[in-house]
Amino acid sequence: MSETLLSARNLAFELYEVLDALSLTQRERFAEHNRETFDAAIGTARSIAEKYFAPHNRKADENEPRYENGAAVLIPEVKPAVDAFLQAGFLNAARSFEDGGMQLPTLLSQACFAHFQAANAGSTSYPFLTMGAANLIESFGSEEQKQRFLQPMIEGRFFGTMALTEPHAGSSLSDIRTRAEPADDGSYRLKGNKIFISGGDHPLSENIVHLVLAKLPDAPPGVKGISLFIVPKFLVNDDGSLGPRNDVLLAGLFHKMGWRGTTSTALNFGDAGHCVGYLVGKPHQGLSYMFQMMNEARIGVGMGAVMLGYAGYLYSLEYARERPQGRLPDAKDPATAPVAIINHADVRRMLLTQKAYVEGAFDLGLYAARLFDDSLTGQTEDAQRQAQELLDLLTPIVKSWPSEFCLKANELAIQILGGHGYTREYPVEQHYRDNRLNPIHEGTHGIQSLDLLGRKLAQNGGAGLKQLMRLITDTCERAQAHPELTTLRQPLEALLAALQGVTLGLLGELAKGQITETLANSALYLKVFGHTVIGWRWLEQAIRAQEGLTAGNAADADFYHGKLQAARYFLTWEVPACHHDLHLLKTRDDTCLGMQQDWF
Amino acid sequence: MSETLLSARNLAFELYEVLDALSLTQRERFAEHNRETFDAAIGTARSIAEKYFAPHNRKADENEPRYENGAAVLIPEVKPAVDAFLQAGFLNAARSFEDGGMQLPTLLSQACFAHFQAANAGSTSYPFLTMGAANLIESFGSEEQKQRFLQPMIEGRFFGTMALTEPHAGSSLSDIRTRAEPADDGSYRLKGNKIFISGGDHPLSENIVHLVLAKLPDAPPGVKGISLFIVPKFLVNDDGSLGPRNDVLLAGLFHKMGWRGTTSTALNFGDAGHCVGYLVGKPHQGLSYMFQMMNEARIGVGMGAVMLGYAGYLYSLEYARERPQGRLPDAKDPATAPVAIINHADVRRMLLTQKAYVEGAFDLGLYAARLFDDSLTGQTEDAQRQAQELLDLLTPIVKSWPSEFCLKANELAIQILGGHGYTREYPVEQHYRDNRLNPIHEGTHGIQSLDLLGRKLAQNGGAGLKQLMRLITDTCERAQAHPELTTLRQPLEALLAALQGVTLGLLGELAKGQITETLANSALYLKVFGHTVIGWRWLEQAIRAQEGLTAGNAADADFYHGKLQAARYFLTWEVPACHHDLHLLKTRDDTCLGMQQDWF
Repeated sequence: MSETLLSARNLAFELYEVLDALSLTQRERFAEHNRETFDAAIGTARSIAEKYFAPHNRKADENEPRYENGAAVLIPEVKPAVDAFLQAGFLNAARSFEDGGMQLPTLLSQACFAHFQAANAGSTSYPFLTMGAANLIESFGSEEQKQRFLQPMIEGRFFGTMALTEPHAGSSLSDIRTRAEPADDGSYRLKGNKIFISGGDHPLSENIVHLVLAKLPDAPPGVKGISLFIVPKFLVNDDGSLGPRNDVLLAGLFHKMGWRGTTSTALNFGDAGHCVGYLVGKPHQGLSYMFQMMNEARIGVGMGAVMLGYAGYLYSLEYARERPQGRLPDAKDPATAPVAIINHADVRRMLLTQKAYVEGAFDLGLYAARLFDDSLTGQTEDAQRQAQELLDLLTPIVKSWPSEFCLKANELAIQILGGHGYTREYPVEQHYRDNRLNPIHEGTHGIQSLDLLGRKLAQNGGAGLKQLMRLITDTCERAQAHPELTTLRQPLEALLAALQGVTLGLLGELAKGQITETLANSALYLKVFGHTVIGWRWLEQAIRAQEGLTAGNAADADFYHGKLQAARYFLTWEVPACHHDLHLLKTRDDTCLGMQQDWF
Repeated sequence: MSETLLSARNLAFELYEVLDALSLTQRERFAEHNRETFDAAIGTARSIAEKYFAPHNRKADENEPRYENGAAVLIPEVKPAVDAFLQAGFLNAARSFEDGGMQLPTLLSQACFAHFQAANAGSTSYPFLTMGAANLIESFGSEEQKQRFLQPMIEGRFFGTMALTEPHAGSSLSDIRTRAEPADDGSYRLKGNKIFISGGDHPLSENIVHLVLAKLPDAPPGVKGISLFIVPKFLVNDDGSLGPRNDVLLAGLFHKMGWRGTTSTALNFGDAGHCVGYLVGKPHQGLSYMFQMMNEARIGVGMGAVMLGYAGYLYSLEYARERPQGRLPDAKDPATAPVAIINHADVRRMLLTQKAYVEGAFDLGLYAARLFDDSLTGQTEDAQRQAQELLDLLTPIVKSWPSEFCLKANELAIQILGGHGYTREYPVEQHYRDNRLNPIHEGTHGIQSLDLLGRKLAQNGGAGLKQLMRLITDTCERAQAHPELTTLRQPLEALLAALQGVTLGLLGELAKGQITETLANSALYLKVFGHTVIGWRWLEQAIRAQEGLTAGNAADADFYHGKLQAARYFLTWEVPACHHDLHLLKTRDDTCLGMQQDWF
């Protein structure tokens, strides 16, 4: 069977040649692991994803959740898939042995999870949301809350959600109106409406634990007055058994362009006046707690975007190899047999572009997962801090770059299949529709660009930024050992130098209080910064490929040549094109900002 | 009611300020017309599009045609809409009075038609296909065929299709296998299978006239052996009444990503051995006949792409004006009221980009329609020939540029609406799905790029190309009279100069027989050529806007400022970014061509 989710060879390249996953086994937490346990986990993930998740991906799209008698009804294939995922232990892959987990590095748990994301974005969301909610309670919940809610989540009996968005406020969380009034028993009574709550109702678990942002009566205005509450669908008795239904009403389902396998719900809290919630952590600190979950979610969203792009790439690659059509421009004799379309230069361009996007972003996503591991288990406190600072800086890129460019990959996959790609008889149009959500949820593209330029660059005195620049420079220096990489290295060096200059200028303007003008073109900055990062990751991959070639493993020569060519594409076709964006940033171009409302 | 299909002010600007539609009334054919008749036709089109086409656009998407008892069943709203279109005379808008038409310039008939394309791409396809098929019979059919088939089409009783694609051959028409054997009565018996035939079955007309490409027994191989046949769904008796059902079987319907209102069919010709067809024109000339229809169809497809982009732009603009959310970066006080999102710089960027794409492409589409008029009614034979040469050259751009960039506009419209834009409760996601077909049908993007670089550039000794270069230079020279336009003009001049150099180089390589290497990056060439053309059209619009401002019409000042700002966006943000593409073309970069199949 040909590969449909991701390339096993490429995953091994990432883990063992680029990101040195085995070095993690030198650390105490991962000492029980080795390449065999890593590969076994990956093999299990692949096999469950192929057997339980991929087969109902289209069916879930064509039969989206229905609203019946106040509940969301899913197709029957979802529960066995999610159950297989739970039983194989992937919900707790990164959790410690003693907490019932596999104690895998996040790098490995993310590599496993990627298979499910490629196979079926919709069904994979339910455990994904649960993992995020569980981690949040683990970090900030009381011991009693952990006992009552976290433990059943770890056991896969309760699922979770994050309930932030309200109809009038959208991304502007400072304007949420959901209220939480203290009750006599120390709990709270919530009242408010939330929309776009993924997994807000479903029949997959005994209970659903909503993590809800709301305001206490004495809340200061804005984001500093938001608190976090646990609001279960069913109350939980002291002995752990389920109590009565809480006052959480499924008001309706949203009907989406794609990602239809996941319920997107409108939830009413407290319509009947008795919606019970439990404060997590301290009052008014909810947004900072939620941001931990959102940062993890953003990395997960980025990887989800990668994997939809990856699945489309592999499908269109196989199609292009098998579909005969037309002849080459200098051999038009109609008496000759048609060639497979992979032989057409423009089809190759579309395949190579997809490869550059999805494998570049795949590398970045796994690199971010490795940084997460280093932030927790790095050899020194300094190393841990540095990893955290770099991860903070990169998070907007890890989330947004794949959401934009792996979506473009999906467009190219459709184009390669032509009229067939436009029909629902083939999977690539669903990949696009599913992936179109990723630039929107967990912080839109625009919000990521403001987060990067307005916040992350200067965070910790710019420590993450300096570190990144140093790392990219290191990679360029190491590339000098390989004359074959000169034409790949130089465009990155040129872009890095230009980016540094523009970045200093923008930070200077921000420091002077020129906020609106400086942030106006943040989308351009996000793009150039992202291309610099991905260009760096491609140069890093190219070095490893060049080393692999030099080592002379003949069986892998094609693989390494492909890596070098994709790196060449990205570094010589895409990276140099960013200089014009930098020019606009450098000159503080005000074309968009200066467009008056009445002029449209 | 706010505008949802297109801006009436912008249409008037195009017709009366940019393209001088009234000058056409000086010509004998259009002498009965004047601004009042033009505006009346537009007003009628707008009102029918709003009343009959727009209201069922979503319903048609959600209830795609069903296959029942060998026939395609549509929702009931389609027929009254198409009937209203027919009764108002839009099917024959450009036909002469004596043939029952309105004798409008194509510029005006296209302007009218644009309203239907914006309102409902699916339902509009049925008359669109019929117009193309009717024009083909008019040009190449015998008198008897015109009497029997064309006349009922003009009367709206018969509809038409174009049946080219076959399952194994796709775009490679030289490989079609449908056969036509001569019968004793001078007609032919066809046998073969066609797919993706739009409008291949429906209950909207008494009969359907399929224009089918097939091969005669003595056909030479390849594209020079393809003939064109009329194959009616029902045979037509000598008195014009319907005879028995022809042997054309609806084998099935395709289920598409979008554009679902139009049936996309698989048709079997001759399963029972008695499929009657009539040869159009001469044997083996079918492809050249069909190309006339395809060229018209390509302009129509381009305008269709524009109008879906336009509808999305207007919807997201209105949404951005009305939706309050968040605060500006330098006024974050949560006690202040949220601002309408149009005030956010990045939202303005996304709106301005959409405006630049859709209004730039709208101008080009109407300019092409005006060239069509000039090719038929220009004052001298030279003028007619020149218009035809320029139109031939521009056709791949008119088709492909909007298909790519107005589709991007649709993506931006979704992004502006955020989570709402991703739901099917709002129209913008359907705009995207509908528009995604346009880079595929009527010649894929890749085919357009080969047509431009490999064929159209050198056609007629490069006469069209030289003319275009001269026209762009003229516009730049006229822009010199307006110092305000200096920064808009210069990037276009720079790109034009660079494009000319690269074009000469590529043509030289082609002349030397370096076909494969030279055509390898045709997609880049298509993009740069398209941006040059659209940049030119924007500079032309900017000159008119500057003139309008200078004339001092205060009520229009906002409109003209908007035009100038969109021109500024396109000419200073997008046009200069093309130089890197030209660099790759100039150096005959072989990154994509050199990527070996086994390296993927």
